[in-house]
Amino acid sequence: MKIYTKTGDKGQTSLVGKRVDKDHLRVESYGTIDEVNTIVGYAMTYLDSEDTKDLYESLQKIQHELFDCGGDLAVVKEGIPFKTTEKMVEDLEKLIDEYMDATPPLEKFILPGGSKAAAIIHQARAVTRRAERNVVSLMKQETIHVPVFLYLNRLSDYFFALARVINTRLNIKDIEYERGAIVFRTDKK
Amino acid sequence: MKIYTKTGDKGQTSLVGKRVDKDHLRVESYGTIDEVNTIVGYAMTYLDSEDTKDLYESLQKIQHELFDCGGDLAVVKEGIPFKTTEKMVEDLEKLIDEYMDATPPLEKFILPGGSKAAAIIHQARAVTRRAERNVVSLMKQETIHVPVFLYLNRLSDYFFALARVINTRLNIKDIEYERGAIVFRTDKK
Amino acid sequence: MKIYTKTGDKGQTSLVGKRVDKDHLRVESYGTIDEVNTIVGYAMTYLDSEDTKDLYESLQKIQHELFDCGGDLAVVKEGIPFKTTEKMVEDLEKLIDEYMDATPPLEKFILPGGSKAAAIIHQARAVTRRAERNVVSLMKQETIHVPVFLYLNRLSDYFFALARVINTRLNIKDIEYERGAIVFRTDKK
Ligand code: B12
Ligand code: B12
Ligand code: B12
Ligand SMILES: C[C@H]1O[C@@H](n2cnc3c(N)ncnc32)[C@H](O)[C@@H]1O
Ligand SMILES: C[C@H]1O[C@@H](n2cnc3c(N)ncnc32)[C@H](O)[C@@H]1O
Ligand SMILES: C[C@H]1O[C@@H](n2cnc3c(N)ncnc32)[C@H](O)[C@@H]1O
Ligand SMILES: [Mg+2]
Ligand SMILES: [Mg+2]
Ligand SMILES: [Mg+2]
Repeated sequence: MKIYTKTGDKGQTSLVGKRVDKDHLRVESYGTIDEVNTIVGYAMTYLDSEDTKDLYESLQKIQHELFDCGGDLAVVKEGIPFKTTEKMVEDLEKLIDEYMDATPPLEKFILPGGSKAAAIIHQARAVTRRAERNVVSLMKQETIHVPVFLYLNRLSDYFFALARVINTRLNIKDIEYERGAIVFRTDKK
Repeated sequence: MKIYTKTGDKGQTSLVGKRVDKDHLRVESYGTIDEVNTIVGYAMTYLDSEDTKDLYESLQKIQHELFDCGGDLAVVKEGIPFKTTEKMVEDLEKLIDEYMDATPPLEKFILPGGSKAAAIIHQARAVTRRAERNVVSLMKQETIHVPVFLYLNRLSDYFFALARVINTRLNIKDIEYERGAIVFRTDKK
Repeated sequence: MKIYTKTGDKGQTSLVGKRVDKDHLRVESYGTIDEVNTIVGYAMTYLDSEDTKDLYESLQKIQHELFDCGGDLAVVKEGIPFKTTEKMVEDLEKLIDEYMDATPPLEKFILPGGSKAAAIIHQARAVTRRAERNVVSLMKQETIHVPVFLYLNRLSDYFFALARVINTRLNIKDIEYERGAIVFRTDKK
């Protein structure tokens, strides 16, 4: 089988339902989601031991869900059911709550890093936020399946909480940004 | 020698033949190619053993070729010969065919990851596609040396095939995206 | 405490002093600075031995300074003092000079890579340049605190010099780009 089909050698490509330029915001958006997915795959290679099994499995679920999100953004044809659900967003919220409860209270920004796994998860967090920004631009010009956007917004918070859990389990203390004020507040709305 | 020349401290920089703003699409394009190159350099550090020597050398060739691509995009002056060739694109195609033959048949999307080297190559793949998108935007407003664009398109397929070869050699099975249909087809044009 | 505040679930977010769309160039800029910061945090995990202690500490200082830069770009309210200073730029210049003196003379482009730490620092370099490009776009439409821009420009040169120091200390010779001319010159202005 040939994976290089040369159909994209003129600068255009296929969505599900339409041909568009390769720099179309839909393509940019699921391309960036793909990028996030590769970083998650990399982080997982540092979490394959027995005591991080739960985190590994959680990330594998997220890899599938990132494909759901990307696929949904690729669809412009009527009548194809979307895959990303509000339930997926709520599942993330539950995990965030669980991780926040398992980590020391937070007041100031922390320097991204500590362990290798946490550092890479922070990178996934930052790239997820880039994907979210692309989707926001896309939403201004086309209708999209809204849960995809909510999912990405929550996912970056999930990665933040996850990075902290990883370091906590490894007994590594996150270092606070020294010139920062108290930015995290319980009453923040 | 000073590498910081401060000539860019006003937001402009030099192409070969012209001064432009640093957010010019040419600069964006070769800047992203540079980013790809750094990820390739990182992946190579996981492929320096005897049994992956062929892959290592292949990637080093690609590092040189990425400089060819970047350099070609930097040139707007008449009379300077381009470096990127159709032959370079064909060489990639040969390697892709070879790698595809050495890996299990493919039907569904696979989760990027498995081994460290494969995960990082998947990241290079995704960033190469970002570079390709930049070049597509650039092509809409300026004439470029077309083989650069073809090279990038093929390179991302090369990285995909390479990631699979790496995992196959390490006896790691790629995991299929569970909610996906059969997307890879022999008859795909 | 909940870190997911859901305030951004409509595509808008808060600067210090104003609500804007999440794809606003300020958000793009400090979002990319955050991405740089995560890569620095990752590189540091490879530099935590005794003989690279100076480099580790230097990078931790830079992590704080990247927060200064990001914070400054987030502020549009009058009367809040900026954190990024010209002194921070000069400190980088001193370190660059020191590193350049500790590494072999440079004439041609080098392939990014060698050791893991150097490869990742090269990636930080390329992403810092992406952040710089965002800031240049931002500067065209809004007034920013100029030292942030100078800092980013110098920081990418710092990372280049640092990558070379790391490889030199590890006795790894950088490989020159083979089809390149002599591009680095003492008389370059
Ligand atoms: C979106 C997309 C992506 C996204 C994917 C994921 C995501 N969800 O985020 C991203 C950007 C990550 C991606 C990456 C790649 N992709 Co892609 N991708 C597509 C695209 C546009 C849509 C696939 C999709 O998700 N469809 C959504 C669902 C709803 O559609 P579906 O799966 O086809 O299922 C529907 C129908 O097919 C139908 N159906 C399903 N099964 C069957 C069976 C029968 C018998 C019938 C009648 C109907 C039917 O029912 C389904 C529901 O209605 C297709 C092109 C296209 N327009 O189909 C290429 C495509 C599948 N990709 C392709 C390639 C090459 C790749 C990459 C290797 C590129 C690269 N170098 O990186 C990677 C591989 C990534 C990986 N990890 O495996 C090629 C495959 C070529 C080939 N030889 O088959 C395609 C065909 C594009 C092309 N060049 O023509 N891709
Ligand atoms: C494109 C470019 C890049 C691309 C490079 C590669 C690529 N191919 O993708 C990227 C973005 C990756 C890059 C990165 C960097 N770059 Co750069 N880059 C350039 C640029 C714009 C062009 C270089 C090039 O490829 N030219 C293409 C070929 C065709 O030109 P050429 O090599 O000069 O060869 C022609 C002529 O020079 C002539 N020629 C060659 N040799 C000789 C000799 C003589 C005697 C004569 C008369 C003529 C001659 O003949 C050749 C063919 O016509 C130059 C600035 C400029 N306008 O020259 C800066 C430049 C070389 N870069 C510079 C720097 C600092 C860097 C970085 C360190 C920046 C950073 N912090 O990341 C990195 C280093 C990367 C690395 N791995 O080594 C500086 C060097 C400063 C110095 N002190 O010398 C320059 C001069 C820009 C500047 N600030 O003024 N760069
Ligand atoms: C800029 C910013 C970022 C930047 C930060 C850094 C940087 N400097 O580059 C980036 C993009 C990296 C970032 C990331 C994150 N952020 Co943020 N960020 C902000 C933002 C917009 C401004 C913070 C800031 O730097 N302010 C600049 C200085 C000047 O302001 P200040 O620190 O508040 O200090 C002034 C005042 O607060 C006052 N002050 C200080 N202390 C006190 C005390 C009292 C008693 C009083 C009266 C006044 C006072 O005096 C100071 C000077 O005037 C705030 C929202 C906002 N508008 O405040 C969110 C915010 C702090 N972030 C938030 C979150 C969730 C995050 C992330 C977890 C998101 C993610 N998933 O990635 C990460 C965490 C990163 C980390 N490593 O810790 C949330 C926190 C929610 C909560 N429950 O508290 C906030 C509140 C946004 C929101 N959703 O509402 N963030
Ligand atoms: C923590 C802070 O990060 C900013 N913010 C919110 N969403 C994004 C995003 N997708 N990318 C970058 N920054 C973002 C807002 O300013 C928020 O207050
Ligand atoms: C596999 C799918 O990826 C999309 N595609 C093609 N080229 C790019 C690119 N440079 N970046 C992101 N996505 C791309 C197309 O939709 C193709 O069908
Ligand atoms: C070394 C070369 O890199 C280019 N250059 C300068 N600043 C940036 C940036 N932020 N991103 C990408 N390329 C840049 C210029 O063309 C310079 O000459
Ligand atoms: Mg958010
Ligand atoms: Mg392609
Ligand atoms: Mg510069």
